[in-house]
Amino acid sequence: MNSSTPAGALAATRNWNTRAQEKARRLKLIEPWLDGAVLDPARIVDALSALIVTGDRVALEGNNQKQADFLSRAFAKLDPERVHDVHLLISSISRPEHLALFEQGIARKVDFAFAGPQSLRVAQLLEDGMLEIGAIYTYIELYARMFIDLTPQVALVCAAQADRHGNLYTGANTEDTPTIVEATAFRHGIVVAQVDEIVDELPRVDIPGSWIDVVVKADRPFAVEPLFTRDPRHIGELQILMAMMSIRGIYERYGVTSLNHGIGFDTAAIELLLPTYGESLGLKGKICTNWALNPHPTLIPAIESGWVQSVHCFGSEVGMEDYIAARSDVFFTGRDGSLRSNRVFCQLAGQYGVDLFIGSTLQMDADANSSTVTLGRLAGFGGAPNMGHDPRGRRHSSEAWLKLLKDDGPNPKIARGHKLVVQTAETYKKGGEPTIVDALDAIAVGEKSKMPIAPVMIYGDDVTHVVTEEGIAYLHAAEGVEERRAALAAIAGVTPIGMRADPAKSAELRRRGIVAYPEDLGVRRGEAKRSLLAARSIDDLVAWSGGLYTPPARFRSW
Amino acid sequence: MNSSTPAGALAATRNWNTRAQEKARRLKLIEPWLDGAVLDPARIVDALSALIVTGDRVALEGNNQKQADFLSRAFAKLDPERVHDVHLLISSISRPEHLALFEQGIARKVDFAFAGPQSLRVAQLLEDGMLEIGAIYTYIELYARMFIDLTPQVALVCAAQADRHGNLYTGANTEDTPTIVEATAFRHGIVVAQVDEIVDELPRVDIPGSWIDVVVKADRPFAVEPLFTRDPRHIGELQILMAMMSIRGIYERYGVTSLNHGIGFDTAAIELLLPTYGESLGLKGKICTNWALNPHPTLIPAIESGWVQSVHCFGSEVGMEDYIAARSDVFFTGRDGSLRSNRVFCQLAGQYGVDLFIGSTLQMDADANSSTVTLGRLAGFGGAPNMGHDPRGRRHSSEAWLKLLKDDGPNPKIARGHKLVVQTAETYKKGGEPTIVDALDAIAVGEKSKMPIAPVMIYGDDVTHVVTEEGIAYLHAAEGVEERRAALAAIAGVTPIGMRADPAKSAELRRRGIVAYPEDLGVRRGEAKRSLLAARSIDDLVAWSGGLYTPPARFRSW
Repeated sequence: MNSSTPAGALAATRNWNTRAQEKARRLKLIEPWLDGAVLDPARIVDALSALIVTGDRVALEGNNQKQADFLSRAFAKLDPERVHDVHLLISSISRPEHLALFEQGIARKVDFAFAGPQSLRVAQLLEDGMLEIGAIYTYIELYARMFIDLTPQVALVCAAQADRHGNLYTGANTEDTPTIVEATAFRHGIVVAQVDEIVDELPRVDIPGSWIDVVVKADRPFAVEPLFTRDPRHIGELQILMAMMSIRGIYERYGVTSLNHGIGFDTAAIELLLPTYGESLGLKGKICTNWALNPHPTLIPAIESGWVQSVHCFGSEVGMEDYIAARSDVFFTGRDGSLRSNRVFCQLAGQYGVDLFIGSTLQMDADANSSTVTLGRLAGFGGAPNMGHDPRGRRHSSEAWLKLLKDDGPNPKIARGHKLVVQTAETYKKGGEPTIVDALDAIAVGEKSKMPIAPVMIYGDDVTHVVTEEGIAYLHAAEGVEERRAALAAIAGVTPIGMRADPAKSAELRRRGIVAYPEDLGVRRGEAKRSLLAARSIDDLVAWSGGLYTPPARFRSW
Repeated sequence: MNSSTPAGALAATRNWNTRAQEKARRLKLIEPWLDGAVLDPARIVDALSALIVTGDRVALEGNNQKQADFLSRAFAKLDPERVHDVHLLISSISRPEHLALFEQGIARKVDFAFAGPQSLRVAQLLEDGMLEIGAIYTYIELYARMFIDLTPQVALVCAAQADRHGNLYTGANTEDTPTIVEATAFRHGIVVAQVDEIVDELPRVDIPGSWIDVVVKADRPFAVEPLFTRDPRHIGELQILMAMMSIRGIYERYGVTSLNHGIGFDTAAIELLLPTYGESLGLKGKICTNWALNPHPTLIPAIESGWVQSVHCFGSEVGMEDYIAARSDVFFTGRDGSLRSNRVFCQLAGQYGVDLFIGSTLQMDADANSSTVTLGRLAGFGGAPNMGHDPRGRRHSSEAWLKLLKDDGPNPKIARGHKLVVQTAETYKKGGEPTIVDALDAIAVGEKSKMPIAPVMIYGDDVTHVVTEEGIAYLHAAEGVEERRAALAAIAGVTPIGMRADPAKSAELRRRGIVAYPEDLGVRRGEAKRSLLAARSIDDLVAWSGGLYTPPARFRSW
């Protein structure tokens, strides 16, 4: 024993259980309004006012889908004289009251992953000095830090049902709730869950009651958005052409069986071509069997045609509930028949368990760095960067992963494969703006908002393939930075980057298989017609599902 | 709708719920032996014989700590005429009966992460053609694939207690159980849990009963090994010197507050120097505040001295239970007072939520690739590669991470930071073998076992710093492969690699701060004495803990 520090001396004088005691103190304040774990909803503002203390870190469940909106609305009603300088941890800043917290001075600092719908207001509040950003994350980075240095004092979450013991049933939208609750409950934070109903017996337990402190019946069912539904009517022929090239030039060539699709019409087109174009190529069972994916309605025809063995989901999708329940061989469902989604596990699966990520981008530079931010908006990252990178912690091999192995490093015997990271983009956006540009808007946005680095969504050095309507650049096969640029330029059309392509170099790259145009892949441009889509409308998807898919009203045309 | 594929036609003819039906069929067979969810232990072999079918994927909980050993022993008693060609998914092949499954022909194929204790036998069975390897993983890659294409038909797990509804209490060793159970239960696999006790009321619920099919009381408490306990008596002066350099040259310099330590005496030395050497440098509160770490007993003095704000744990450690319960401000614990560990969340935190990984290696090559495999053994990867790489999906910044930012890429405006990935090694092992070598044994092992790539633990291009007793190589600051090699050679002592160092180049690198010797860091070799350790024996650790730490018998000297 070091003589200068007597053993047990500090242990005897220090209180090592301050968090648990503080939690007990706060819960005591609301005891009069509790029946077991159940709070009188009329007391929600009073209760939050007692449970949340100035300076607290509060995790508010604003996922990219479901929203603890009864709690966020109550939270925004707190008296800023009494509760202020809250540090908000929120995966998705989605609702007006999320920002009202800052406008009213209740919250001051925020760590978040995505602010799509509110990104303009976030930028404005930042400029006005009413909001301070801790950092901007991917979803799972934010959760990771909840287990390290950002453990919440209070979590405000939501579920479909609770029983009187506080056990929660999330139903299909489990999403991030178990993760937020675990990080809070086991470090003596307070967990408050809003639920649509309080029942005697739950269909299944998604989160044990011994992790939950307070449940409260919301004034209306929690808000949830159908973010992943893409109406096939809006899929154009260029997207169909790109989808055909992706299937032939990437999925078939590398034997991609496990994969994740980003959200968008480009990937919806691929999903809708599997039962038609994919079938005609004899690829059923050879590609696209196992998915990490939200339950996209556009995957229904592929599922019904027998292409899909499994889908693990980040979250759910409005209207897909009955279809999912009726397809339990394909989806992860509970004894009650409803989906068990889980964002962290699906992100884990998407990072380490699948061979391909493909997503579309709004802007890409000459090095294939891409971004979805545009000027004046602080959109954040969401989940794509977690899928759209080469996971260097991966140690297991697969056929597709090994096809990208390069042994040109300092020691050819120390080589590893690479995840397929594919970016799709039409060279021009609908408004006539080029997609492939000299400088990403993200650089200016980062500088303007004083971000420490530019908010790049997918880094070019992680990207293995770029698909445009012109062709495919096999970047992973290019030698060095200049050749990567030449390969991308060769498929960049008449964008500024494409105009600078050297035709001789493009031809050489094409000969070497580093660039492929549709004809090199056996893809006929004339075939890229909407008639090739397995479904051309939401109505078609409903028909494919045998009436099990019930789209939200906004997607109905009948 | 595509006219060739009538909507709903396939849906009407195909059974989409075969998994759930097969599960029901199997469970029906054991109904006579069940009382609620509780199985008569005398029937365990009969029950597994009914529940496991030839060709099944079976996830057996062999973690690197706790073991479902009652179930694995019963599993190995099945009749291979009846049940054979099982595909075993197991994170750690640790127990003799794990391999008996293959010797007896019950199992045929295995996907695993670690086989330390049984790695010789695994290699032998592979050579004898009695075992086939699917792939070798890190822990979380294997779990990731359980949500994609390796979902188990049956999971055999363990917990401390169950109630009659099947709710499980894991206590301190939650570890991997919730993950394995979630992947199995929600894809209609069968979950069998052995427990030490069946009780009326659980101290807390770690896994809800609605995810569990069968609980069975084991004949004895589940096996668990104190894998993370390092006796300070075995820490030598070279390790203390390296620890001093790490603290000054890395932790202090980059301001490392959040971190993970590998297992071993090198990192135990760092833990034991914080309250003495670290204190004398005035670093308390400035470094090492938030940890992703198992509850290492050697961290006790730092905790008691007020260095540590939080520790999130992969698993637990034998003998640390009472200490953890009494330090609830530091550890993640439940209402019952015991630890809530969770391997997946801690790996997530260690990958995305902390700034530094440091671990010692047994072998390193000139490019800083390292490996713990030695000839004839198939040890696997465990968890280190998941921590010991630069997570390219990371998008948030921190002070330490930004200090490694390099803007020498093709576009200086697109730059990102880097995780600190530190490898420590004495240049020579105790037996007189060099640690820094021309070729890793892993290359020969990989070739002999026909592995698709060499089983490298940490890749050199992810490593930012190497620490030996000679000094520190700041590899991240070196320009190009040759200079990285020169920096490593400059601290490689009289190993073959070190002997080839060019003294002029070493001196230049030292001037440029890319290599530092102890004197460059203000570290005096003469101070590197065992007297500097805050605890010099297990007994000292017990004293520091105020008697709360109760080491296993093998570690007691009194």
